[in-house]
Amino acid sequence: MPRDPNEAPPREREIGGEEALIAEYWAPLAADFPGALGLKDDCAVIATPAGAELIVTTDALIAGVHVLPGEDPCAIAWKALAVNISDLVAKGATPLAYLMSVALPDAPERAWLASFAAGLAAAQQAFGCRLAGGDTDRTPGPLSVSITAFGTVPKGRMVLRTTAQPGDRVYVTGCIGDAALGLALRRDPELRARCKLDAAARRDLDAHFSRPHPPVALVPALGACASAAMDISDGLMKDFDRLCRASGVGGHIEAPHVPLSEPARAIIAAGGATLADLMSGGEDYEVLACVPPARAGEFERLADKAGTRVTCIGTIAAAAAGVVATDRAGQAVVFGKAGWDHFSRS
Amino acid sequence: MPRDPNEAPPREREIGGEEALIAEYWAPLAADFPGALGLKDDCAVIATPAGAELIVTTDALIAGVHVLPGEDPCAIAWKALAVNISDLVAKGATPLAYLMSVALPDAPERAWLASFAAGLAAAQQAFGCRLAGGDTDRTPGPLSVSITAFGTVPKGRMVLRTTAQPGDRVYVTGCIGDAALGLALRRDPELRARCKLDAAARRDLDAHFSRPHPPVALVPALGACASAAMDISDGLMKDFDRLCRASGVGGHIEAPHVPLSEPARAIIAAGGATLADLMSGGEDYEVLACVPPARAGEFERLADKAGTRVTCIGTIAAAAAGVVATDRAGQAVVFGKAGWDHFSRS
Repeated sequence: MPRDPNEAPPREREIGGEEALIAEYWAPLAADFPGALGLKDDCAVIATPAGAELIVTTDALIAGVHVLPGEDPCAIAWKALAVNISDLVAKGATPLAYLMSVALPDAPERAWLASFAAGLAAAQQAFGCRLAGGDTDRTPGPLSVSITAFGTVPKGRMVLRTTAQPGDRVYVTGCIGDAALGLALRRDPELRARCKLDAAARRDLDAHFSRPHPPVALVPALGACASAAMDISDGLMKDFDRLCRASGVGGHIEAPHVPLSEPARAIIAAGGATLADLMSGGEDYEVLACVPPARAGEFERLADKAGTRVTCIGTIAAAAAGVVATDRAGQAVVFGKAGWDHFSRS
Repeated sequence: MPRDPNEAPPREREIGGEEALIAEYWAPLAADFPGALGLKDDCAVIATPAGAELIVTTDALIAGVHVLPGEDPCAIAWKALAVNISDLVAKGATPLAYLMSVALPDAPERAWLASFAAGLAAAQQAFGCRLAGGDTDRTPGPLSVSITAFGTVPKGRMVLRTTAQPGDRVYVTGCIGDAALGLALRRDPELRARCKLDAAARRDLDAHFSRPHPPVALVPALGACASAAMDISDGLMKDFDRLCRASGVGGHIEAPHVPLSEPARAIIAAGGATLADLMSGGEDYEVLACVPPARAGEFERLADKAGTRVTCIGTIAAAAAGVVATDRAGQAVVFGKAGWDHFSRS
């Protein structure tokens, strides 16, 4: 199509200053949140509904640490919000709003900003929250995106890490290890051919790594039924161990019950990874929840209603039982991955 | 004194992992804030008192951008919290708590961490808030400290930037320009001798730059009397212009009324800086407040009671009058500093 001669001239590739950047890219993300005051003041107002309590968390993504070189800005933005929403969801909190402090290494280009803002827009739509404020700086270092997320729970009903009880069933959402395999495929593109993965499977694993989707729909089920929960960010076994230590209990995971996706099963079958690798892989951003047996039926019904897959993978035990995972033969699973020793009980 | 042979052996210079770092340095800062849950969970609970509303803000300090090379970690920490508290105070909010996301470029050494934590401890004591949670990462880039601060106001009573009215008196707290002179003395140590400053004056100016002290005690007076306010972080004239633009008004500052410290007067007298330099210097972290004439008496009484110096430096006018500062002869003050053109009205 020929260009309309009345069309405005093309805009500069780089944007002028912080105020223009805020008005053009950040303010639309705050449009539906009255407490953001259009991002025109120094602070935002967070109104907590009557009977509710505000739950807050903060997590940063830093390029070169949490973000691979050349990552799509749209995916960086999505993940920066998702890792924070993951913490809220695991606490039974409904996402409400977020603040973002972003440090940009280069003069911000419109194309980059547009893609980054589109990632935030998609993520906040998916997770049900809005931008409430922030801070944009230049940095001599790598890109960094630090988000503080706000959610609400009914007063006194935050699901803690410290309250698991012996006898509780242990559930996980989704599938375990897909994000770790997505990362492995980025680092070793040959892995795909060796494991005979089709392009769709590769894309699916990559999406679990680059655009994690914490199970927001499970919030009501967690609030109603979970005795304790946390999100799985550093690997299922490491985080299960943390939850057990924080609660002063032991726990048992039956490794064959750990839910795996079809591509993950294919990779294990082809020798590209072990189940133990996936159980310590990290970046799942699924929820690990403990549910008293009397509530397990209701939890499964509510999860089903929410369209969230939950799988019972084990049981909470007395502290003396320690934290173990066993295979089909009842033998302890050996985790070769560095790090396991650092957090095992002494 | 000889070392006690029963004393524990000296600890390692570097600290082991994130959990040890949190337990040793961050958890004591959260000890008095129940919602922090001892920094042992993934989220914190922020309870807002009945009838109050939560006000939030986020600002980051990045080494090499906002922090001079070799700056004392104690001062970095103080300033990282102070710049956020400054935003809260100017909105009439009482500081409550903060989250901190810190990215460390090197393996964290105990001496550095102890000094940094001591700076936070002193600042949170001075400002009346507590650490509620955070995130600690390693970074290949410079040190960065991103803080989100929470404060409370009576419901609907946040002091906005957008609500100044023609006829309002314009007040500032403290003295203007001391922080800019503190920075100038760091960059040009000869300036001290040229202006015949004694060591105490130099230390005082440096403290205004490196450990700003937003006037927390003024919060009740601002809430009771101010029609609009913001903190002064980018220079008095630039921020006054922003406030006037946001409110859709004009404004007049009488430059001779701008409060200056004794050392600042001495430097101006010696030709080391001009009043215009100080009025556009930045980093004051004082409050710029607009007060209707009918409330001015009460505002001054409340400020006096709070022990906070406030000075009336001008008046809000209709938009058509523009934003100006005049000297003793009634002539417009010329601001030579780069940046003024970028934010002047067109």
